[in-house]
Amino acid sequence: MNLQKHVSLNLNLRGLGESPTLAMSERCRVLRTEGKEVLNNSIGQSPFPVPNSVVKALKMYAREKTYLPVKGLPELRNAVADYHRQKDGIDASADNVLIGPGSKILMYLLQMSFYGEIVVPTPCWVSYVPQAQLLGRQVKLINTTYEDRWHLSADSLTELCESEHDTYRPRIVILNYPGNPDGGTYTVEELKNIAKVARKYEVILLSDEIYGELHHRGEHVSIANYYSEGTIISSGISKWCAAGGWRLGTFTFPDNLDWLLAAMSDAASQTYTSVSSPIQWAGVTAFKGSVDIERYLWHARRIFSKLSNQCAEMLREAGARVHDPEGAFYLFPDFTPIADNLEKRGINGSVELCDRILCENHVATIPGAAFSRPENEFTLRMSYCNFDGSKALAASEAIPLHEDLPEGFLDHYCAKTLESTKRICDFVRPRD
Amino acid sequence: MNLQKHVSLNLNLRGLGESPTLAMSERCRVLRTEGKEVLNNSIGQSPFPVPNSVVKALKMYAREKTYLPVKGLPELRNAVADYHRQKDGIDASADNVLIGPGSKILMYLLQMSFYGEIVVPTPCWVSYVPQAQLLGRQVKLINTTYEDRWHLSADSLTELCESEHDTYRPRIVILNYPGNPDGGTYTVEELKNIAKVARKYEVILLSDEIYGELHHRGEHVSIANYYSEGTIISSGISKWCAAGGWRLGTFTFPDNLDWLLAAMSDAASQTYTSVSSPIQWAGVTAFKGSVDIERYLWHARRIFSKLSNQCAEMLREAGARVHDPEGAFYLFPDFTPIADNLEKRGINGSVELCDRILCENHVATIPGAAFSRPENEFTLRMSYCNFDGSKALAASEAIPLHEDLPEGFLDHYCAKTLESTKRICDFVRPRD
Repeated sequence: MNLQKHVSLNLNLRGLGESPTLAMSERCRVLRTEGKEVLNNSIGQSPFPVPNSVVKALKMYAREKTYLPVKGLPELRNAVADYHRQKDGIDASADNVLIGPGSKILMYLLQMSFYGEIVVPTPCWVSYVPQAQLLGRQVKLINTTYEDRWHLSADSLTELCESEHDTYRPRIVILNYPGNPDGGTYTVEELKNIAKVARKYEVILLSDEIYGELHHRGEHVSIANYYSEGTIISSGISKWCAAGGWRLGTFTFPDNLDWLLAAMSDAASQTYTSVSSPIQWAGVTAFKGSVDIERYLWHARRIFSKLSNQCAEMLREAGARVHDPEGAFYLFPDFTPIADNLEKRGINGSVELCDRILCENHVATIPGAAFSRPENEFTLRMSYCNFDGSKALAASEAIPLHEDLPEGFLDHYCAKTLESTKRICDFVRPRD
Repeated sequence: MNLQKHVSLNLNLRGLGESPTLAMSERCRVLRTEGKEVLNNSIGQSPFPVPNSVVKALKMYAREKTYLPVKGLPELRNAVADYHRQKDGIDASADNVLIGPGSKILMYLLQMSFYGEIVVPTPCWVSYVPQAQLLGRQVKLINTTYEDRWHLSADSLTELCESEHDTYRPRIVILNYPGNPDGGTYTVEELKNIAKVARKYEVILLSDEIYGELHHRGEHVSIANYYSEGTIISSGISKWCAAGGWRLGTFTFPDNLDWLLAAMSDAASQTYTSVSSPIQWAGVTAFKGSVDIERYLWHARRIFSKLSNQCAEMLREAGARVHDPEGAFYLFPDFTPIADNLEKRGINGSVELCDRILCENHVATIPGAAFSRPENEFTLRMSYCNFDGSKALAASEAIPLHEDLPEGFLDHYCAKTLESTKRICDFVRPRD
């Protein structure tokens, strides 16, 4: 009896399902076995190779086999602190850093450890809400709008803190910029205003800056500059270093959140123990950086920037509204302006929209609903990573960085991504 | 306020502390900085290098950077299934396997996912109880005795199932053999008897066989042979393959626990995502095995066997009782026969015993209490891994495997371990 199906499952897990991005990849796989030529724009994975120097470091440290300290390899914690000191102008040392096998599990341990409210502006990353469900908790969602560029405003944060009859409730607000799924980023002015409110109400900020290096103009600014005492910076090598599959994430805490770092580290020692040693050793090279890595980043940014702007333009022409892409590798078009047309075709929300685009025009994207947007909103996330990053990088390297990429570059090296966008446009374009 | 110390911590985490093995390593480090020559017999880490072919594979796959499927790289799941089919005679395919970053986090996800009682015979591995605490749950401990060779008996399992007025309560019983901390293993007869009771009461078994390949005679037998429909086998590359720091663990489920595998996989997709890709690719080589790896294992076993028997003999001469070592790399001496003498010196349990041995004779061991034994019992775990494994392996390779290791081999290659044992003996030996 106990061995039979579904008898003895924790209720928090029931109906959880796989993460929507992973589920979409599986649907692509199935359609492909049916012979369909599916384009997958659902994955958030850099198309570029891991920088050579980082791969070399992994090979060099392949024999490292000892269990490393729970909080991380001291050399890596040091490199991460240096990195944030230099890039973000904050005062951090190795003691402020916690290393995890991906930042996702660090988010989970944060939600587990912190006894307070987790506040997330939407559209937000797909895992915050299910992680809370796993823990039998809830997250407080604040819906932002297209007009606000999908950003949390200082005013709405103030309103939240004032409206709950519990102004100083322990709270963590999660910001993610450059943002997944929106592909935009906060202005310095916006960051300063949010920092002011957070300081006033003693709100902790988790600043998810995993796409920081993929700001398309290389001008990422951390809110830690304006609220260093209350900001945890989340980073890792998954996105800018293209090593998502390696699993290495980092949290950098301010001194006065040492108690939270300590609690998460204790939880880590009973769950993942420590991160793979060869991977951590390679991570040192990644975070120490080099001219090679900087050059690699500039090429990646130049390609992402040109490609995303062209895709955004195509989507606008087809009737969507979409903000100018500023970072990461996602677009988050909103088809509200042509909602009537979609509804006439029996499409009443983002899940149906993405389903139909997948089934009819064979492009995989992720519905806005997966990012905690209202069910009946016509938003979706398309990543623009489905091209051969090594080829594109090599071609870009032959073109001086101060020049624009020439006409035809995208047609040649990012043809699939343009084709994906065209298929989405073909699908949504008003029909008679 | 919210930023201050200890304000907003989940109660389940408070007082959890670091895992005792990790805490002990930290104490060693501190004593060493004070100039003490401390011998560390608290760590459960193979002294041998990762087999060459496995290191080579890691280098070869260093460029692998994609997010792998949550359940694991198909090639690895396949290799793990093959491994258990060949070694343990069970019927498994890739679909039965779940890969995690260490088996510790798989244990955690199991405790999280399963809605039922977790039953653990003591002495047991240090993390089961704290993992339950993290989840706000409890584990049911069954104390075994020295006379029972620290083994769960079929009778006591029957008694548990009959005594609770809830005979068919969903239950998972965790067995670990060869065992940490006891260094013994179950006989085929014992396994058959437990299997019979488990089948009768529909109890699920989690059979932690991470030390299976380190059965000193190479004669490990899995209980899955006798209860295949209800046994999950836990394994990984941390112990026999000496790659603890790499973080790769495996669970292999029977077909009719597919619902549990699915739930754990969903939880994995919201926590650790997937295991590091280069590590998984290297794991394929480890689980596929080879003549080289088999030869490496035989050398490791020969050294561990001779060393552990000599240490056990020394401990017995000093007044301890300890069973003949059969596997893994731990001894679990019980100093009850000389309890009077210890009590006279103000030592009233295992924590004090290990403290005093560390402070006075500078050997780090882990108290029985950390393995959920009664506080006032005079047991401790000493690992016998503190020697240069590469040197010892190279020396052993020069001696045909059918021969015994010569006189003087241990004195030469495992001198530190013998010295640790001598210091422990010196400490406990009755004094006038």
